[in-house]
Amino acid sequence: MAATIIKLFMLLGVALLASVCVSSTSDHENPFIFKSNRFQSLYENENGRIRLLQRFDKRSKIFENLQNYRILEYKFKPRTLLLPQYNEADFILVVLNGKAILTVLNSNDRNSFNLEVGDTIKLPAGTIAYLANRDDNEDLRVLDLAIPVNRPGQLQSFLLSGTQNQPSFLSGFSKNILEASFNTNYEEIEEVLLEEQEQDPQHRRILTDRRQEINKEDVIVKVSKEQIEELGRNAKTSSKKSVSSKSEPFNLRSRSPIYSNKFGKFFEITPEKNPQLQDLNIFVNSVEIKEGSLLLPNYNSRAIVIVTVNEGKGDIELVGQRNENQKEKREENDKEEEQKEEEISKQVQRYRARLSPGDVFVIPAGHPYAINASSELNLIGFGINAENNQKNFLAGEEDNVISQIQRPVKEIVFPGSSKEIDRLLKNQKESYFANAQPLQREAIAHMKKPIFKLFYY
Amino acid sequence: MAATIIKLFMLLGVALLASVCVSSTSDHENPFIFKSNRFQSLYENENGRIRLLQRFDKRSKIFENLQNYRILEYKFKPRTLLLPQYNEADFILVVLNGKAILTVLNSNDRNSFNLEVGDTIKLPAGTIAYLANRDDNEDLRVLDLAIPVNRPGQLQSFLLSGTQNQPSFLSGFSKNILEASFNTNYEEIEEVLLEEQEQDPQHRRILTDRRQEINKEDVIVKVSKEQIEELGRNAKTSSKKSVSSKSEPFNLRSRSPIYSNKFGKFFEITPEKNPQLQDLNIFVNSVEIKEGSLLLPNYNSRAIVIVTVNEGKGDIELVGQRNENQKEKREENDKEEEQKEEEISKQVQRYRARLSPGDVFVIPAGHPYAINASSELNLIGFGINAENNQKNFLAGEEDNVISQIQRPVKEIVFPGSSKEIDRLLKNQKESYFANAQPLQREAIAHMKKPIFKLFYY
Amino acid sequence: MAATIIKLFMLLGVALLASVCVSSTSDHENPFIFKSNRFQSLYENENGRIRLLQRFDKRSKIFENLQNYRILEYKFKPRTLLLPQYNEADFILVVLNGKAILTVLNSNDRNSFNLEVGDTIKLPAGTIAYLANRDDNEDLRVLDLAIPVNRPGQLQSFLLSGTQNQPSFLSGFSKNILEASFNTNYEEIEEVLLEEQEQDPQHRRILTDRRQEINKEDVIVKVSKEQIEELGRNAKTSSKKSVSSKSEPFNLRSRSPIYSNKFGKFFEITPEKNPQLQDLNIFVNSVEIKEGSLLLPNYNSRAIVIVTVNEGKGDIELVGQRNENQKEKREENDKEEEQKEEEISKQVQRYRARLSPGDVFVIPAGHPYAINASSELNLIGFGINAENNQKNFLAGEEDNVISQIQRPVKEIVFPGSSKEIDRLLKNQKESYFANAQPLQREAIAHMKKPIFKLFYY
Repeated sequence: MAATIIKLFMLLGVALLASVCVSSTSDHENPFIFKSNRFQSLYENENGRIRLLQRFDKRSKIFENLQNYRILEYKFKPRTLLLPQYNEADFILVVLNGKAILTVLNSNDRNSFNLEVGDTIKLPAGTIAYLANRDDNEDLRVLDLAIPVNRPGQLQSFLLSGTQNQPSFLSGFSKNILEASFNTNYEEIEEVLLEEQEQDPQHRRILTDRRQEINKEDVIVKVSKEQIEELGRNAKTSSKKSVSSKSEPFNLRSRSPIYSNKFGKFFEITPEKNPQLQDLNIFVNSVEIKEGSLLLPNYNSRAIVIVTVNEGKGDIELVGQRNENQKEKREENDKEEEQKEEEISKQVQRYRARLSPGDVFVIPAGHPYAINASSELNLIGFGINAENNQKNFLAGEEDNVISQIQRPVKEIVFPGSSKEIDRLLKNQKESYFANAQPLQREAIAHMKKPIFKLFYY
Repeated sequence: MAATIIKLFMLLGVALLASVCVSSTSDHENPFIFKSNRFQSLYENENGRIRLLQRFDKRSKIFENLQNYRILEYKFKPRTLLLPQYNEADFILVVLNGKAILTVLNSNDRNSFNLEVGDTIKLPAGTIAYLANRDDNEDLRVLDLAIPVNRPGQLQSFLLSGTQNQPSFLSGFSKNILEASFNTNYEEIEEVLLEEQEQDPQHRRILTDRRQEINKEDVIVKVSKEQIEELGRNAKTSSKKSVSSKSEPFNLRSRSPIYSNKFGKFFEITPEKNPQLQDLNIFVNSVEIKEGSLLLPNYNSRAIVIVTVNEGKGDIELVGQRNENQKEKREENDKEEEQKEEEISKQVQRYRARLSPGDVFVIPAGHPYAINASSELNLIGFGINAENNQKNFLAGEEDNVISQIQRPVKEIVFPGSSKEIDRLLKNQKESYFANAQPLQREAIAHMKKPIFKLFYY
Repeated sequence: MAATIIKLFMLLGVALLASVCVSSTSDHENPFIFKSNRFQSLYENENGRIRLLQRFDKRSKIFENLQNYRILEYKFKPRTLLLPQYNEADFILVVLNGKAILTVLNSNDRNSFNLEVGDTIKLPAGTIAYLANRDDNEDLRVLDLAIPVNRPGQLQSFLLSGTQNQPSFLSGFSKNILEASFNTNYEEIEEVLLEEQEQDPQHRRILTDRRQEINKEDVIVKVSKEQIEELGRNAKTSSKKSVSSKSEPFNLRSRSPIYSNKFGKFFEITPEKNPQLQDLNIFVNSVEIKEGSLLLPNYNSRAIVIVTVNEGKGDIELVGQRNENQKEKREENDKEEEQKEEEISKQVQRYRARLSPGDVFVIPAGHPYAINASSELNLIGFGINAENNQKNFLAGEEDNVISQIQRPVKEIVFPGSSKEIDRLLKNQKESYFANAQPLQREAIAHMKKPIFKLFYY
């Protein structure tokens, strides 16, 4: 026990020493991590909730290129239905947990799909759809990347039904237009199609018994087993073999992983492989890192990746430049000056964050990062600007760009001799994923949790 | 008479009642309508005028995505010519009225086209062109969507000729450059090519008699019948059959309408059908609504449509969210706060406007709208972000998305039973266009003008 | 001598007279020219330097569409190496002078290229590369257009090696991650891969003798003849015949010039001809104007061209509208007003600048310009928005749009008669390039330098 404490202080000493060389960052100064308090509830009742993440570009100007991308997260209790609606945004939906029936309406037809974990589908802007949790026990969780069409970053949705708080959009039309449209008198339209609304915000109308019974003021409602069955009739199942459909769902794992070993698996569907992702120039990936394993340091050559933690815990280290956040504040103050020296930061900074389910983090292009899992970790990523993106690894046997450097340059770049460098690079026999504590495991094999995590906060 | 007044008050009562449920909006709060005072005169003389509509994004931030689209309107008297010029913008020209000869110059060739009502042509940025009203009696009116190439929303045009107020751009070059370029002395160039300019703005030079005779200070000039004939020699006529030409004009009505019945006609040329519209990702449409008819409620799934009233009168109702305009004002004030709850409006608002010739209105994607015609109405629309756009109707027999909703969902969404809903939906036998006053016509068939319009302002 | 002075005053008189008609501009009011003081040094040591031009959009809002384009200029002494790095930007490199070896690393392979003057290559964002000056005597100069991928106009580069001022990005990872990644203890990694850094900015660590020997704190380092040879092994040479390679360099002169005569040559590689330029929608050109010659007045229909003076001296005249710069300042002050008359400038303005090696100037689309060379002039241009761009000439025999104007319009547009105009236009027998002083040469053939340059400042 005493020995452990001493070791602890020794490691702490190393950490302090390290901090004089490369600056590190506390969580709240780290603009790349979005903890769950950065989500805003759009809708919540006893049957489920819809949450919207803060605008990336409102958090920091370094995310200017993400201004038209929004993250939504849905959670529905068993046997519930999200009522029909459409959005002024393209949606990419990924099922994180549970089983769903998604129904997509067009003016001439209707398609229903049975969705399972990993199923992904694009819902083009303006498409009317409704989504049911068809399971009797499990919650349905769905992740959604939204790309608004009317105005950058602004999300609006239209409900077909009216609720107490949000009237049906049909009620937005005047009596005259409705009468002419439905070729009948207003009273009938009101009775059959329009939900009554509160008379004024201060003074809620007392609901009739009938309306309370069927709980129509809700956006997410309970449905019976029979209703679920009727919804699921003729529902198609996402093809587990092909990812090339233009409108049907595809599964993130329908193709073999691009990287895989005993420490983890990396699945990725690129715009080149799937026509739904092509227009939007987006890739979707799913990364599994086993407990105690590490996704080796790598960077994306041109994609900015928005990663959501689906399950598990872990840590990310992202290498950027010092004060990426503050730089632009200075810029703004100085914008009056006609010509000003730009601050070209040459300081390397480590951005470190603890990862928990529901957290979102952003990996800009060219920024090296590594992730280790303290429990089995599953991450879902949306890659913006995905076309021709390359992943370059900085350690590991395969796809390691450092090992491509020619001998004379290697010796200039690094302090060691060419022979020392080659020997060092070959020490890691794994590729892409590796053991996160190869040394500790041998040295202090009796400790279950990796010690360095004790120093986090 | 007394009965009419009572009816009037009864209807007024209904209107007041309606306003407690769904908020409505007066014309000056309606950001979607641009009345004619929002046009600015760029040029005007006794032969015609050129007017430019206010920048959409300067009117309201909700039109941020329209910042690089400008609307121009030309009106030329019979037998006049708009002198050669070119613009730092792509142009889509649509002839609203009259007959034109458009001449398009390239460095190696010249093409002239006889244009008539509905003829549409793209003039790529930098193309030198001149436009004549070839008719002896009728005014020529042309609508123009401009998409600047140098700087968002900024329109600059260059005149080949000099006028009193705007010198020829040739005169922008120095004497030395001009002498070397034309390989002759400056005096000859000045005499033959350059228009004399005013000496200084405060002190106009007295014009020589000769210059006054031919009225060279004008941008729009009178031309003789013989000159018109010479301009029209070899002029091609727009193909009434094909819309697939890369550079020749096409007519909006050369294809059969996409929707048509006795109440109206809807013509639309999409980027998929026409290569000139493909790069710009724009559709152009022409909608005719007969007097007393209604374009049924519908929305565009992804296109933002800029509609200009060419002829007739009518009313539009657009359903949006409450205070679309004000929301962003609040946002701006709060932009200092690092993280702020977004205002997600759940209030439906009706945006209503009276339509007269020359009015422009904008229909954002996903916003349902309906238009009725109090006199035969002709509308010309430019659809921005047109690719893969779908029109979804909310009433009428065909292409009605509401009728695609499955039975159990229908019953949850609407107050009526499934049977009641289906019966109601089937009541409208028409599709796309319908009678705007089916009930009034029967009830108060003696009234010629629909009564509800009395309450407008 | 006295006669010369009198002539001088006469010409001066003409210049003064001209200024009352068309306003001209002094150098510092000319927003289109970027003199060398607008470059900022990013890195400089005795072996070379890297300079970055001021952001175009920070200089003037008229360059809003250039906000994501940056110009870099490299200059390396003989037998030096720029250490491996990668950038968060697509690069288009053009060799201006000297001989280089460029090595491009991918995760799976490595390509080296021998580059010479005019060789051009795209380096996609995130690509690790290093560049050597392989010549024993000549400096290597490289021009670079950078298009950042993460954030508009923001350029960040990552060094593989650490220097005193900029640590290796590997050092951004924590000890734990590095140990797991390289599967060895931190001490070895530090010794072999990581460069030691200064302890704190005020207090530089004393370097060990060994580190001083190999001068590792530098980004540009001296290399031996043997090292150059080793780097150049297997290096490919840019194809002088084809410009269609997807990743290999192409030479700007590998195709015959688009315009050529005894006064000059105009080479241009468009996105249609080269796949590397296609995604970026950029053309690259190289213009040679002989001493005493003139590039005739012309304009680009849709491209904005960023031109860098490589060699020689000359003058450019660009014709725009008055106060293009100031217009937007007024706009900004008034941005509060909801609806405001736009200032549509109708004044033609001449923007004139002296050109020296290293100067950069911008030619917006639609702006006519002419360039004359007082000594053999070589210009390198990057054309933004290059697709379907047309060059329209305003003087000269070929490709002259003015000569395409029909007779009756010509007479209305210009003061002269149709016959006079045609005779004038035919006076210039040359096309594209011509003699810059055809008259002076005859009149004052004894003066070597063209006289008009005396009046410049």
